[in-house]
Amino acid sequence: EVPAEVVAQIDEHVRGLEAKSGLVFGGAARPLLLSVRSGAAISMPGMMDTVLDLGLNDGVVESLAADRSRARFALDSYRRLIQMYGNVVAGIDAARFEHLLEGLKAERGAGTDVDLGADDLRDLIARYRSLYLEETGADFPQDPRTQLLGAVRAVFASWNSPRARTYRRTYAIPDELGTAVNVMRMVFGNMDERSATGVCFSRDPSTGAPGLCGEYLVDAQGEDVVAGIRRPSSLVGMQADFPEAYAQLERTVGLLERHYRDVQDVEFTIESGHLFILQTRSAKRTAVAAVRAAVAMVEERLIAPEEALGRIEPEQVEQLLHPTLDPRADVDVLSTGLAASPGAASGRVAFDPETAVRMSADAEDVILVRSETSPDDIHGLVAARGIVTAHGGIASHAALVARGMGKPCVASCEGLVIDEHARTATLAGVTLAEGDVLTVDGTGGRVIRGAVELRPAGIDARLATLLGWADDTAAVAVRANADTPEDASTARRLGARGIGLCRTEHMFFGEERLPVVQEMILAADAAGRQDALDRLLPFQQEDFEQLFETMAGLPVTIRLLDPPLHEFLPPLEQATDARMRARILELREANPMLGTRGCRLGIEWPEIYEMQVRAIARAANAVTGRTGVAPEAEIMIPLVAFGEELDRLRGLTERTLAEEDCQAVRAIGTMIELPRACVRAGELARRADFFSFGTNDLTQTALGLSRDDAEGAFLTEYLESGVLAHDPFATLDQEGVGELMRQAVEGGRAANDRLEIGICGEHGGDPESIAFCHRLGLDYVSCSPYRVPVARLAAARAALAEGGAGAYAPSGG
Amino acid sequence: EVPAEVVAQIDEHVRGLEAKSGLVFGGAARPLLLSVRSGAAISMPGMMDTVLDLGLNDGVVESLAADRSRARFALDSYRRLIQMYGNVVAGIDAARFEHLLEGLKAERGAGTDVDLGADDLRDLIARYRSLYLEETGADFPQDPRTQLLGAVRAVFASWNSPRARTYRRTYAIPDELGTAVNVMRMVFGNMDERSATGVCFSRDPSTGAPGLCGEYLVDAQGEDVVAGIRRPSSLVGMQADFPEAYAQLERTVGLLERHYRDVQDVEFTIESGHLFILQTRSAKRTAVAAVRAAVAMVEERLIAPEEALGRIEPEQVEQLLHPTLDPRADVDVLSTGLAASPGAASGRVAFDPETAVRMSADAEDVILVRSETSPDDIHGLVAARGIVTAHGGIASHAALVARGMGKPCVASCEGLVIDEHARTATLAGVTLAEGDVLTVDGTGGRVIRGAVELRPAGIDARLATLLGWADDTAAVAVRANADTPEDASTARRLGARGIGLCRTEHMFFGEERLPVVQEMILAADAAGRQDALDRLLPFQQEDFEQLFETMAGLPVTIRLLDPPLHEFLPPLEQATDARMRARILELREANPMLGTRGCRLGIEWPEIYEMQVRAIARAANAVTGRTGVAPEAEIMIPLVAFGEELDRLRGLTERTLAEEDCQAVRAIGTMIELPRACVRAGELARRADFFSFGTNDLTQTALGLSRDDAEGAFLTEYLESGVLAHDPFATLDQEGVGELMRQAVEGGRAANDRLEIGICGEHGGDPESIAFCHRLGLDYVSCSPYRVPVARLAAARAALAEGGAGAYAPSGG
Repeated sequence: EVPAEVVAQIDEHVRGLEAKSGLVFGGAARPLLLSVRSGAAISMPGMMDTVLDLGLNDGVVESLAADRSRARFALDSYRRLIQMYGNVVAGIDAARFEHLLEGLKAERGAGTDVDLGADDLRDLIARYRSLYLEETGADFPQDPRTQLLGAVRAVFASWNSPRARTYRRTYAIPDELGTAVNVMRMVFGNMDERSATGVCFSRDPSTGAPGLCGEYLVDAQGEDVVAGIRRPSSLVGMQADFPEAYAQLERTVGLLERHYRDVQDVEFTIESGHLFILQTRSAKRTAVAAVRAAVAMVEERLIAPEEALGRIEPEQVEQLLHPTLDPRADVDVLSTGLAASPGAASGRVAFDPETAVRMSADAEDVILVRSETSPDDIHGLVAARGIVTAHGGIASHAALVARGMGKPCVASCEGLVIDEHARTATLAGVTLAEGDVLTVDGTGGRVIRGAVELRPAGIDARLATLLGWADDTAAVAVRANADTPEDASTARRLGARGIGLCRTEHMFFGEERLPVVQEMILAADAAGRQDALDRLLPFQQEDFEQLFETMAGLPVTIRLLDPPLHEFLPPLEQATDARMRARILELREANPMLGTRGCRLGIEWPEIYEMQVRAIARAANAVTGRTGVAPEAEIMIPLVAFGEELDRLRGLTERTLAEEDCQAVRAIGTMIELPRACVRAGELARRADFFSFGTNDLTQTALGLSRDDAEGAFLTEYLESGVLAHDPFATLDQEGVGELMRQAVEGGRAANDRLEIGICGEHGGDPESIAFCHRLGLDYVSCSPYRVPVARLAAARAALAEGGAGAYAPSGG
Repeated sequence: EVPAEVVAQIDEHVRGLEAKSGLVFGGAARPLLLSVRSGAAISMPGMMDTVLDLGLNDGVVESLAADRSRARFALDSYRRLIQMYGNVVAGIDAARFEHLLEGLKAERGAGTDVDLGADDLRDLIARYRSLYLEETGADFPQDPRTQLLGAVRAVFASWNSPRARTYRRTYAIPDELGTAVNVMRMVFGNMDERSATGVCFSRDPSTGAPGLCGEYLVDAQGEDVVAGIRRPSSLVGMQADFPEAYAQLERTVGLLERHYRDVQDVEFTIESGHLFILQTRSAKRTAVAAVRAAVAMVEERLIAPEEALGRIEPEQVEQLLHPTLDPRADVDVLSTGLAASPGAASGRVAFDPETAVRMSADAEDVILVRSETSPDDIHGLVAARGIVTAHGGIASHAALVARGMGKPCVASCEGLVIDEHARTATLAGVTLAEGDVLTVDGTGGRVIRGAVELRPAGIDARLATLLGWADDTAAVAVRANADTPEDASTARRLGARGIGLCRTEHMFFGEERLPVVQEMILAADAAGRQDALDRLLPFQQEDFEQLFETMAGLPVTIRLLDPPLHEFLPPLEQATDARMRARILELREANPMLGTRGCRLGIEWPEIYEMQVRAIARAANAVTGRTGVAPEAEIMIPLVAFGEELDRLRGLTERTLAEEDCQAVRAIGTMIELPRACVRAGELARRADFFSFGTNDLTQTALGLSRDDAEGAFLTEYLESGVLAHDPFATLDQEGVGELMRQAVEGGRAANDRLEIGICGEHGGDPESIAFCHRLGLDYVSCSPYRVPVARLAAARAALAEGGAGAYAPSGG
């Protein structure tokens, strides 16, 4: 119920409107009609926006209709009230009203609502009221104050509708914010032929182009424009039909934009030639439009660069970097799943990596459709334009690789069942064969039948300008996670200031290499292992050379081998010879996440790390010799828990570098990805030149939560039922994992004041997590190449949010 | 080399001995002979103990031998010097000398060394010197000072011998301690028939019985007693043969014991009727002897109760609680493995639980021999007297269950291969069939062929007295982990002050129950699940009733269901129907340790926890009604990471208790076993009445180390190569895990000053970890029932080590 003090305020407000207008709310002679409108700053799905024409009842309508010239207007307004009130306040399905309206129009042979005469409208009102009685068990309320308070109550209640709650959770809007309710005097766009209603933007919300942009309808009320029953006309026509009102609108909207210093979304009504502004809000706009408008407004000196940075949500930037679906395109959605990697792509279906590679070689665009992917599928992922999986979450192998490569991916696609033998899949009842065309909408989590036209991607001049301001503002540098020269080149193009994580294991896959890696793992003794390693060294060296050349002048942080060795062996059922089977069984682990991996490999088989360090040293020396520029290599030791591990492996690294006479490794450091490492940071910092937080694993260990098992299982349940507000793998758990990081930063810096501290892994590309890293005083974040622009903007906004330090400081005059 | 200042000290000391005795070191006329003896407070494997007869050379010996009555003595001493010096200083295998001696005796038809005449000894000396030359490339040194410094050097060097280092690491004796070297004037037990040498204890080191106890040899030197070549006589005989010396020895040893206030281990020599005490040390003694002597010495007012507590190592107490092997028994060791659970047992081999149960029903003692065990084998473990496994570490299922039940277990037994089909096993080349007799030595990690006589176990009156003092001294209470009424009754008998951990999942196994549990897991819907739970409830209630009655008056902490549900399903290959197979696949997890378990089960299927709480409530009400004594139940929620989890499950618990009108649950608390829980302890403490550290899982998550995978794999490597000094699952990692605990205690107590804090799991029974818990200010530790006496003593010693607070305060006058 609406609280008594609010009712009293409303009553007083209505008395004020009556006094000002000389009209009477509920009066038959000079009736005051009211609208109720949500005061929420943004419109939200599930929120009730407006109820119009409140104050009409049988008596008022008949009194108005006595004036024949206004009869149609009065009756039309009344049926609108019953329909809108019946829907949003009494909860009757809007389609039931539409159905009655369409029935009547069909009986009368009417094309539009306007074709209906006063008698038709009287008939429609009678039918609406019967429906209302039937559905609610009560007559449509005749008391205007009952109508008003009912509408007010509905607005307040809609704040807590499930859809609104979900929306707020998604966009991190606090529930406590609540909504205001505006009670306003009605003006009528459906008064006559000199009346109209419309919406208008101060700039094009789709492209950001300057100038008014919008739609209007003659002889209509607001909901007609939104509901799409009548097709509205472009504002261009209004300039001719209502020249005065148009000029006034243009002036007023310009004023509003200058006042609010942001693109405005304005609702207006023309009542018998007079313009009324009903509402103005900051306009929702596409990423393209947001960037163009913000940069233009800086150039127009309307806002400062800092403010422009504040206008663009970092996530919007990502939209600019992937081809996206044309939102106006009419699509045939087959199924939905997790929006695992943004962007969109169309192509022909392949069910296995080999087919994907073959089809791609035939110049086909390929969509890889698979139950799930593993490192063995890497060539298929490389060949595909988009990926759809039946299982796995947003941090599944497919999703991680897809995001790293900037390819769209829909994971855990509902109802997708693949029959590998038949080489078909069923998806929501539809059977797909190899070669069928699908479109993957990785931004929207949709799988669409057929090809859809896409919008191209890229950093344009305006975005470059904006990100330049961002770099000048940010305190935290942005590096990229890149394993290949292609990744590195993308990262550099998108503004990364170095590589924060090069995962050397990705170099272990590949047709020529994997068999050698497997020989190394299967070797019966140290000599056999060394032989295989000797053959791997040139491959690694070649990769590092390319990486160093691509990143000349910027730091390249290389992580020594991390994953458990069994990841390089095939699944047991695919192992052919007995030795392989035996080794697979031997390496099998109950909890591989907590097993023999990271620096534990380096302690147990030092020759592996030694080979990698040697490859780095030789590559650095070769590049220095060839280009005259020494690379800025950093060597990173993963999964360290104990000072002794770091002591031994730092020793091994330094010895090997000395043997190769390599000066180009400027730092030796460690990943901080175990809770023990955080609380013993001082001990580690005395042995490290840098720390790099591996918050994926730190989250798994600190929360005791296997990403592979939790996503799609209890973590989903936790998020849905509200035990957790955020997925801790998407957004850093600042209170828990963050507290461990804080201790690590504090302990690390206290022990070593030259310690450089960064973060690599998924959180390095998440704006909220970047803001946290800024507050912790980290030196850099490292994220996947396609997240670099997002992170650059997020880093700047983090500095701005803190104010003072790190705020916009233009570089070079 | 011996440092110059030590050489100078030695020279000065020798000059002093010369002045005092009127003899000359190296002098031919009145030669001073010296012994060199390690000054280490305890003897240590690998340490050199003594070199006797230093100062003899050809000239001195011939001069002494000129007196025919002393010729044999002089020559015997010389050959002893060459043999002992050759062995411990020059490193010649002692067996080589023995071989020469035995050869000569055979040639001469001599029975003992004493049978050899002066000429025989001259011959032997010549052969010894040839051996010395041959082995070292140099003559036996004739310069007495060279001999002396060589012996001194050898004592110092032996401190760093690998065996001594290993020993010190095992017993946590610091390397920096070092050893002194004693240089003493020789007295001769081999001077004549009125001479002798021996060792004696102030009390029996085997039983602790009062009165002198020891052995001696007439006409011998010290090493003869130790080496066991001649069989020494009991001291009883000495009383008759050397009455004066015996009386003097008895007086002196009594004086020494009173002076040192500890059982003494004394070396003495009688030279021509005169008694000399060579050395006294605290005596090594068996656990039985240690307790008996310590308690007696308190009763004799020789030491205070605190001192008695300090005399017994907690680990020794465990020896008193398990049947043990008679150390004098001659055994046929087939193989060795990890000493996974102490004690010893003999019995017939069974290879599967069913056979074990059947044989046990036939009143056979059974040794279960198995590749590894799982919860499915529980009936076999219950039936067996001892367990041998081929795989698994000291924290494997078999080891944990064995320790919990106080049964001996050898895990990871070397060379054990079981052929399940043939129902045989091979062990170090020997084939074992079902029914063969083995003995398991779980204290020594040995598997022995045949039956061996065992020493029985139990808390006797003396141990009870000692542990009573311990309880009066300790600040930390000791509870037990107990899942069954049998466990609880053992725990109570061994002095536990409550149950700190009752794992309710153990109640889910058992012939009648497991099928119902599986129905619950397989249920298609909530109704099916509820139906199975309704049938489980009476089982749980019955278990709780028995537990509450057994523990009347003491707290019983019950943990709600913790393990992942797949642990209750059979292995996939044993699943017969499709529904079971599908569910097994569905519940399969990549890292079960970090998966859907603990309170995550309670959030996802609240009806499971509700059933358990209801069973607790009904059991408590029933017991209160029946006995008039309300149980002191505590309900514990496992694996909590987030405050919201605790909020919801505490709410569910309180609602259910209220529904059942149960007042007997005095506390609702949470396990602290995730790093996040430690750093967010304040948040959790506001919602909890108690914390119980689950340091097994906390160690796994803080160190990122799966116990199942690490033990027997890289953790073994880490311990062997010295990356880690201790197994963090046996002894708490105080710096890492302990730091997280410290934060949890601090944060928890700051938020809730009535918070009770304990620890359950393996570390709760480890003395070093208990000492740490004492320093953290924990209220209790909880360990397996058979560790309770160990923990009681350890808790007292922790309080004593800290001094002041918690020191011995006798209860009740």
